[in-house]
Amino acid sequence: MERHFDEQLAALKAQLVKMSAIAELMIEESIKVLVNRDATAIASVDRHESEVNKLQIEVDEMCFALIATHQPVAGDLRFLLGAVKTNVDLERLADLAVNVCDKAKRLLNYPPVKPFVIIPEMATIASGMVKDSLHAFVNRDVALARRVLLRDDELDERKVLVTNELVEHMRQFPDTTTPAIELVLVARNIERIGDHATNIGENTIFIVQGTDVRHHTEDWTKA
Amino acid sequence: MERHFDEQLAALKAQLVKMSAIAELMIEESIKVLVNRDATAIASVDRHESEVNKLQIEVDEMCFALIATHQPVAGDLRFLLGAVKTNVDLERLADLAVNVCDKAKRLLNYPPVKPFVIIPEMATIASGMVKDSLHAFVNRDVALARRVLLRDDELDERKVLVTNELVEHMRQFPDTTTPAIELVLVARNIERIGDHATNIGENTIFIVQGTDVRHHTEDWTKA
Repeated sequence: MERHFDEQLAALKAQLVKMSAIAELMIEESIKVLVNRDATAIASVDRHESEVNKLQIEVDEMCFALIATHQPVAGDLRFLLGAVKTNVDLERLADLAVNVCDKAKRLLNYPPVKPFVIIPEMATIASGMVKDSLHAFVNRDVALARRVLLRDDELDERKVLVTNELVEHMRQFPDTTTPAIELVLVARNIERIGDHATNIGENTIFIVQGTDVRHHTEDWTKA
Repeated sequence: MERHFDEQLAALKAQLVKMSAIAELMIEESIKVLVNRDATAIASVDRHESEVNKLQIEVDEMCFALIATHQPVAGDLRFLLGAVKTNVDLERLADLAVNVCDKAKRLLNYPPVKPFVIIPEMATIASGMVKDSLHAFVNRDVALARRVLLRDDELDERKVLVTNELVEHMRQFPDTTTPAIELVLVARNIERIGDHATNIGENTIFIVQGTDVRHHTEDWTKA
C-alpha cells in the first residue's frame, strides 16, 4: 500500500511538471506572435491550451483518488491539498498565456506601436518563475520557492515602466491608443502569470513548513 | 463522530459565507470611493481585507482538519476539496476589490473623466454573482450555480462597451489618458471578480455532479 501511494504520488508530480512545461512553451509562443508578428504560433498555443485543460482535470482526479484511497495525514495530506491549489494556478497561468496570444493576434491588424524591449524581458522572467515554482513545489524546496517570491518585484517594476512609456506614447500619438492599450494589458497578463507562480511558491512553503506565508510578506522575505 | 463532522462542516460553510459577505461589502465600498469620490470608505476596505485574509487561513485549516480527522470519501471529500478552491477564489476576488479601491484612490487626484453608468452596473452584477455562487456552493444548488455562469457574459459585454467608450475618449482628449486607463483597468478588475464567482459556480457543479464542467461550456449551458 505504501509503495503504491509513493508511485501514484510520483505520477502526480510528473503530471504537474508536464503542465508547467506546456505552460512555459505557451508563454514563449505567445511572445513569438507578439514580437515576431508570427501568426503560425497561434495554433500551437490553442493546442497546448487543450492539453493543459485535460491535464488539469486528470490532476484533480489523481488528488481526489489519492486522498480517498490512502487517507494520508500530516505532510502528505498537506502536499495533496497544495497540489489541488497548484493545479488551479497552473491552469490559470496557461489561460493568461492564451490572453497574451489573443491580444498579439489582434495587434497584427495594426502597425507596430514601438520597439519591444521590456515585454519580452517580462515574459522571460515570468516563464522562469513558473518553472522554478513548480520545481520548488514537487521537490519541497523552500529556498527556491523564496527566490521565486522575490522575483515578483522585478515583474512589477517592469510593468510600471512599460505602462508609463505606453501612456506617454498614447498622449503624443492618440491614433495609437487602441493597440497601445492592448500592450498595457499584455504587460498586466504577464505580471499575473508571475502572480500565479508566486502562489505556487507560497503553496510550497506552506506544505513544507505548515505555516502560512500568505499575507505575511514582511516575515518570509527576511527569513 | 458523524455528528461532530456535521457540526464542523456547518462551521466551515458559515466561515465561507462570512468571507463572501465581507467581499461583497468591499466591492460596494470600493465603488463608493470611485463614484462618490468618498475617500472615507478606503479604511474600511483595508480593514475588511485583513479580515478576509484571516478567514482564508482559518478555512484552509478547517478543511485540512476535517479531512485528516474524519477521512471523508465520495461527496464529502469532493465538497472539502471544492471548499479549498472556493476559499482561494474568495480571497482573490476580495483582493480585486482592493485593486479597484486603489485605482479609485488614485483617480481622486484627477478631475472626473466622464459620468459613471456602466462600471457601477458591472459592480452590482459581480457582487450578485459572488453572493449567489457562495449560496449555490454551500447549499449544493446546481441550478443557481448555472445561473451564475450565464451572467458572466453580461459582465463581459459591459467591459467591452466601457473600454470602447474610454478608448474613444482618450483619442479625443489625450490629456485624460492616465485616469481613463485606470478606469479601463477598473472594469477589468470587476470582470475578474465575476470570473472568480464563475469558478465557484463550477466548483459547485463539480462537487454535486462529480463531473467536470470546466472547459465544456457548450454542454452545461444547454443542460
